[in-house]
Amino acid sequence: MTKVGVLGAGTWGIALARMLAVNGKDVTVWSALPEELKNLRATRRHPNLPGMELPESMHYTADLAELCVNKDLLLFAVPSVFVRSTAKKAAQYIVDGQLIVDVAKGMEEKTLMSMSEVIEDELKNVPGHEHCRVVALSGPTHAEEVARDLPTLIVAAAKAEQDAKEVQKIFNNQNFRVYTNTDRLGTELGGAIKNVIALSVGIAMGLGYGDNAKAALITRGNAELSRLGMAMGCRAETFAGLSGMGDLIVTCTSMHSRNLHAGMLIGHGMSAEDAKAEVGQVVEGINALPAAKRLEKKYKVEMPIVDVVDAILSGKLAARDAVASLMGRNLKKE
Amino acid sequence: MTKVGVLGAGTWGIALARMLAVNGKDVTVWSALPEELKNLRATRRHPNLPGMELPESMHYTADLAELCVNKDLLLFAVPSVFVRSTAKKAAQYIVDGQLIVDVAKGMEEKTLMSMSEVIEDELKNVPGHEHCRVVALSGPTHAEEVARDLPTLIVAAAKAEQDAKEVQKIFNNQNFRVYTNTDRLGTELGGAIKNVIALSVGIAMGLGYGDNAKAALITRGNAELSRLGMAMGCRAETFAGLSGMGDLIVTCTSMHSRNLHAGMLIGHGMSAEDAKAEVGQVVEGINALPAAKRLEKKYKVEMPIVDVVDAILSGKLAARDAVASLMGRNLKKE
Repeated sequence: MTKVGVLGAGTWGIALARMLAVNGKDVTVWSALPEELKNLRATRRHPNLPGMELPESMHYTADLAELCVNKDLLLFAVPSVFVRSTAKKAAQYIVDGQLIVDVAKGMEEKTLMSMSEVIEDELKNVPGHEHCRVVALSGPTHAEEVARDLPTLIVAAAKAEQDAKEVQKIFNNQNFRVYTNTDRLGTELGGAIKNVIALSVGIAMGLGYGDNAKAALITRGNAELSRLGMAMGCRAETFAGLSGMGDLIVTCTSMHSRNLHAGMLIGHGMSAEDAKAEVGQVVEGINALPAAKRLEKKYKVEMPIVDVVDAILSGKLAARDAVASLMGRNLKKE
Repeated sequence: MTKVGVLGAGTWGIALARMLAVNGKDVTVWSALPEELKNLRATRRHPNLPGMELPESMHYTADLAELCVNKDLLLFAVPSVFVRSTAKKAAQYIVDGQLIVDVAKGMEEKTLMSMSEVIEDELKNVPGHEHCRVVALSGPTHAEEVARDLPTLIVAAAKAEQDAKEVQKIFNNQNFRVYTNTDRLGTELGGAIKNVIALSVGIAMGLGYGDNAKAALITRGNAELSRLGMAMGCRAETFAGLSGMGDLIVTCTSMHSRNLHAGMLIGHGMSAEDAKAEVGQVVEGINALPAAKRLEKKYKVEMPIVDVVDAILSGKLAARDAVASLMGRNLKKE
């Protein structure tokens, strides 16, 4: 029986843990918060995944060492801001050559590393880790839908195709179809930058613009993301795929997106600070903006939508003047 | 003053005619239906573009010869089923080297020609037409939004870049940004096949699936469209652009789409015939299906979503079994 250790008990980690357990894997979940584990064990429910029941076969532990040893696969599902600290603590327990999957999305602002790179970085700091096998699993995936076994497609991306194929085999089932890709950085970049584009779509909606503007921002947003990725050595096809365009579509058209909501408030004329306070939760697009701007500068690519969102959020450009700024650029080839 | 002749007085033709007139062009509109022209002249309104007023400067004629002569640009905006017959009638009046823009979308079922190719085909049947300059204008564009000057992006695609640039210059304004592309066939293919993918999205919605399935169908639908296009000699980038992914997004997420509506009814278990009757208007995806299937066969590409939509519509596969059929395929690279 395939043994899986899941680090993190948020909605995405638990939705995937349940799916793997239901599909016959031996799943153990770790959380840094013992209270969280106690509730999961007692209720077999997650407060933010209504209607979902966890199978009895699932195990829980607050002991990171116990979680990390003797597993066929470790799934990192902690929030992106905790990936480095969790990897640092876990690295000492992880054997060399361990197959690891990361589902957290983001680029670390200080180092500009992707989440997979951050995990590798921490593993390499502990002697004996010569062979890192970190696979990114990314795509258009609301956890609530996976928790209800609704059809979902996703990409497993690894530098070595064999690692991606192993992950594909473990996760794939009749409701969850896994494709492989060897462009791991490109796969992760889409998930990190998409929320900035979603902010721009929210701003356009707040200004009263329509479906034409929304589709244009998603498409041209993906074009500038793809331009950045290619300058970083990624493949254009990745950005036309599930982790690129696919994830961007779901993020920019879902009514529940915090980034759309924050963008709409800003489009109505609210400041970024007030919009963050009003939304009252993490607005990932606002947090991802500094890394996006630094990448744009470092790789010398044109990212006009990222620029405009940055100018609006820093108060340098009024939202209502943003369209003129985007539409008035020199005429271009597509 | 740039003189533009518009063939067709439907919503898209009239929305573009108004926009050009407001931006200082001398615009004349022709329709095969004199009654339509009479109403436009009298009311300066279009019944399906509420709130839009046509400028007094616009001209109307029922005389195709008068429309076609002495123009800097002719805009074909008739429904795709009337493009060949209209081009056949108009060809005798059109001078060699005339700049022509087509906005009708579709592939002719019998010849598998795009609408631009159909116009060229008819021009070449009339002696003296050696130099055809037909440009396709396509993208994510609801006519109702262009009629209200809401921000819109679009692509002008021509075999000769200079022709695309001329069209870009004539149409571009502060609310309507035009990109150029020299992959005309790829640009037109997206607009023709998108409605089949929209049907599949509608079916998924009718079956109660969620945002994950919708984003996956749009992304993988675009992947198979792109595969077909590349086999036909088109460029992959075109399908990641405004006329490809952009138009697909707007078609698959708009609440007003007849294809989504028909697909949802079929997803609920209704037959294709009954769904067409219930929707009561042209369901373009159903009409585009035979050409899509013939192209798939001719160019020997795998188009699993087109296949499944065809199998459901022809009664060979129950909608509820379609997911198993798509999800159960061999595991793949992206």
